[in-house]
Amino acid sequence: MAPVRNAKVLFNQPLAGLPEPGKTTIYDTSNIIDLDMVPLNGGVLVKVLSISVEPLTAGLMMGPNKPASIPFPSYQEGQPTFSFGVGKVLRSENEGFQKGDYVVSPVLEHAEYTIPTDLNFLQKIVPEPGLPPSVYIGAAGMPGQTAFYGWKEYSKAKKGETLFVSTAAGPVGSMVLQLAKREGMKVIASAGTDEKVKLAKSLGADVAFNYKTTSIEEVLQKEGPIDVYWDNVSGSTLDAALGNAALHARFIGCGFISQLVDRTGNGVNMKNLANIVMRGINVSGFLANDAFLLEHWEKEFNDTIPKLLAKGELKYIEDRTMGLEHVTVGLAEVMAGKSMGKKIVVVSEE
Amino acid sequence: MAPVRNAKVLFNQPLAGLPEPGKTTIYDTSNIIDLDMVPLNGGVLVKVLSISVEPLTAGLMMGPNKPASIPFPSYQEGQPTFSFGVGKVLRSENEGFQKGDYVVSPVLEHAEYTIPTDLNFLQKIVPEPGLPPSVYIGAAGMPGQTAFYGWKEYSKAKKGETLFVSTAAGPVGSMVLQLAKREGMKVIASAGTDEKVKLAKSLGADVAFNYKTTSIEEVLQKEGPIDVYWDNVSGSTLDAALGNAALHARFIGCGFISQLVDRTGNGVNMKNLANIVMRGINVSGFLANDAFLLEHWEKEFNDTIPKLLAKGELKYIEDRTMGLEHVTVGLAEVMAGKSMGKKIVVVSEE
Repeated sequence: MAPVRNAKVLFNQPLAGLPEPGKTTIYDTSNIIDLDMVPLNGGVLVKVLSISVEPLTAGLMMGPNKPASIPFPSYQEGQPTFSFGVGKVLRSENEGFQKGDYVVSPVLEHAEYTIPTDLNFLQKIVPEPGLPPSVYIGAAGMPGQTAFYGWKEYSKAKKGETLFVSTAAGPVGSMVLQLAKREGMKVIASAGTDEKVKLAKSLGADVAFNYKTTSIEEVLQKEGPIDVYWDNVSGSTLDAALGNAALHARFIGCGFISQLVDRTGNGVNMKNLANIVMRGINVSGFLANDAFLLEHWEKEFNDTIPKLLAKGELKYIEDRTMGLEHVTVGLAEVMAGKSMGKKIVVVSEE
Repeated sequence: MAPVRNAKVLFNQPLAGLPEPGKTTIYDTSNIIDLDMVPLNGGVLVKVLSISVEPLTAGLMMGPNKPASIPFPSYQEGQPTFSFGVGKVLRSENEGFQKGDYVVSPVLEHAEYTIPTDLNFLQKIVPEPGLPPSVYIGAAGMPGQTAFYGWKEYSKAKKGETLFVSTAAGPVGSMVLQLAKREGMKVIASAGTDEKVKLAKSLGADVAFNYKTTSIEEVLQKEGPIDVYWDNVSGSTLDAALGNAALHARFIGCGFISQLVDRTGNGVNMKNLANIVMRGINVSGFLANDAFLLEHWEKEFNDTIPKLLAKGELKYIEDRTMGLEHVTVGLAEVMAGKSMGKKIVVVSEE
């Protein structure tokens, strides 16, 4: 077969505000690849199917300024960007992988085809019947794990208690919402558009509201106090939650969208921090790749969540953008709160 | 014996800023009491020896605005104020108490003599030989318990790790500092005067500094990152600690002096909240009267800490003011950071 195009997204300059194609990144269509002949040197050739764009990607887009706790190398100028992604093996010289295998990687290159340099990051998946491979970078992958690990480790959920979850229509929040309902909690959900509010209600939220048109403080005063707060945004939403927390409330933080978007460095004004003491609140922050969380909860996640998703007992929502060239615009949409559920960029359907 | 004076401190009006004698409270010397004849109705007559003034007292001085989580009744206008105190039984009609017993209570009236209305709050103590009864409202009492309970429940201290403790010369901070040194930690201590810094060094702090003349940020950048932060102040000190936290740091909050003193309601500006997520930090707030903390740690505290204090293996520091009339000035000193160690007002030496 003749060589084919291998388009790539190249990192150009560190993020300042929202990412822009042509500035933050460059879409490069100048490469070609011979899929039959390209040397693998003991590795595997992967056709990229879907790419995840998410806050972690934004962190990497900071280039040399990326947060130190992100355990991946910085994006390098002129080199392909990467993120969680799912692909299909076209050829393999490694005994762990065979042609036709589906694979996921947290550092899959934003390209049409790639030969991963470090096979330790590449993980074979066997999709549950009925579940598209792309779900393994969404509800059955990192965002689902984030929700599940944090919920299991920190929520101490009790039936009849009240949860407040911010960004309830996002890939993590929508899973948290459903886990809480399965445990018999009352769920208060916030989101940034009326369409997202509808989605949260359809997933079982008892109370759902648009925080851009409705006062968080008023809703929580009426529907709280809250026993568990799932924080995807920090800032003033966190402050409102602190002001309406029950005694011994558990606050779980896995997101910081408001800080990533606000690059002014001015910080946020907090009025209710004293409640952490006065109401005996426990605040736990985490990233889902934390080794001790994997050790505690990875097996249970793999044994249960994909099956529940395939059976429809847990819902997943994908926000699909077609075409590798839209990675950077897709990330800007996520950061601006314009995506619903899990944002993926589909590079190839199969 | 002829009736004697029974001076009292009466609550006059809720706190606005720092408490002022004659405004917040009135010192009333118009009462007399016949110690031999006053009817006890099955209760006990207590001679007040020492009174504790502390942040909790400031909360009660808010009158009707006291924080809801303080499990004591509000101060009533024209009625005596109260707080933790230690006294000696002069007469008893209750089988649980005998003449000569020492007693402590969290709601001991600020008076020379008192007949407690609710004996459930009155607790008999048998001071460890060599330990003055007043220590039982300090290092062997509530402040010591606050330090011990919080440390045991939340610090997960490991030898070689680094602690940062704010208000290190206070009754809670000075105990935390010593507990951390006993577990082989490096201790960074901050305090608000050079005299307090000296005290912290004498208690074993590896690094001690005056936060009014030295940048917290610079010290923590040089001596950190910190694995455990003991927060007595919240606000900008908490923010600096978040900025210099190690992965999986534990933050323990039992104080909120900065919020009590700042009554403007403007809140505090926080720049480093995202680190709670990025560095997987756990923040635990608590009050020492929490039932589950008592259940976990009260016995171990009583079995070990008073003995260590009596032997001198743990140090206690008392800042004594003589005379009941100085309760309100004493509280203002505590709130303004002018006291060293445990502030007590001595009503009578024996």
